[in-house]
Amino acid sequence: MSVRPEVLAANRRYVCEFGDKGSLALPPGRRFAILTCMDARLDPAKYAGLSEGDAHVIRNAGGRASDDAIRSLVISHKLLGTLEYFVVHHSDCGMLLFTDDIISGLLEKSLDTATIDAQGWHDVGQGPGSSAGRYLRWLTIADPRKAVLEDVQRIREHPLVARDIPIYGYIYDVKTGRLVEVEEAAQAGRVLLQ
Amino acid sequence: MSVRPEVLAANRRYVCEFGDKGSLALPPGRRFAILTCMDARLDPAKYAGLSEGDAHVIRNAGGRASDDAIRSLVISHKLLGTLEYFVVHHSDCGMLLFTDDIISGLLEKSLDTATIDAQGWHDVGQGPGSSAGRYLRWLTIADPRKAVLEDVQRIREHPLVARDIPIYGYIYDVKTGRLVEVEEAAQAGRVLLQ
Repeated sequence: MSVRPEVLAANRRYVCEFGDKGSLALPPGRRFAILTCMDARLDPAKYAGLSEGDAHVIRNAGGRASDDAIRSLVISHKLLGTLEYFVVHHSDCGMLLFTDDIISGLLEKSLDTATIDAQGWHDVGQGPGSSAGRYLRWLTIADPRKAVLEDVQRIREHPLVARDIPIYGYIYDVKTGRLVEVEEAAQAGRVLLQ
Repeated sequence: MSVRPEVLAANRRYVCEFGDKGSLALPPGRRFAILTCMDARLDPAKYAGLSEGDAHVIRNAGGRASDDAIRSLVISHKLLGTLEYFVVHHSDCGMLLFTDDIISGLLEKSLDTATIDAQGWHDVGQGPGSSAGRYLRWLTIADPRKAVLEDVQRIREHPLVARDIPIYGYIYDVKTGRLVEVEEAAQAGRVLLQ
């Protein structure tokens, strides 16, 4: 029932075809970083044309500029030499389907997987719940373009982010695979004059 | 000078070959999530055999079980139905090369990229620095196997993580592409009896 045997079988095939990738250097060869969503439909290596060794890829629920994403972006530039950041959210994101109150309420009822239909979320879980979700910000999204703008702005304004790194904001269209620039974010992500 | 034109050209090629992927459902088809490092040499889709639509992929500096990674893992199971978690760190990780004090000190001198040699880190940056790095945990790694164990333990013990999700701990070998299980983590990541 576990996917583990399949994952390990796929890994054995990858090892067989690994070639000379063992000699790749630690710093990203093409010197950029992508912050994007964990969504299963997104493959940043494919949608942005990355080979192993090219670029840092940071992913979380929503592709949000969380403190942890900024930790990763700062390490990427300061210690590993990346020079450009891409923020890539996407259409039909799961983060549009709930709010902090909704997920906190669902987690209070049970930790088991909930279901959604036209009437909203339903929880039929039998397992225990927890009120710990009330103490977190879940970084949900109400307006996709605004979320990209806010994330680009947050990175731009962060005291640990160098002012000469351009930050680009895109929305990936899950229906077509296309990266669509968010114009408002282009302005917000410009390099600051020193 | 910017990589952006290359990224957008690669994206146009991806759009041309996109096929019927626009009909993929939002929840991951193979119902699992991978937490792994942002390192450029790692391609989780390749090393674990993922196609678009298969699995959530969460990535940060080190592949650490940060609060934000746990936010993403909880959303993955509670709202999108994943049933197994993989934590995958790797050999030769950049997070082994510094400490909180080192990166905080470097950021205080300047936000520009530092260099490393046998004598340690050197900062020749001319731009402004910031002491804001002193207020963050950078989640560096001293012992790779122990870091995987700690991350698996942290996820296992988190009040918002369902007790019936198995959590597996692996180290990806950047020299060979091979996933090597961390035995200590296998015990820590077992499903808890209800």
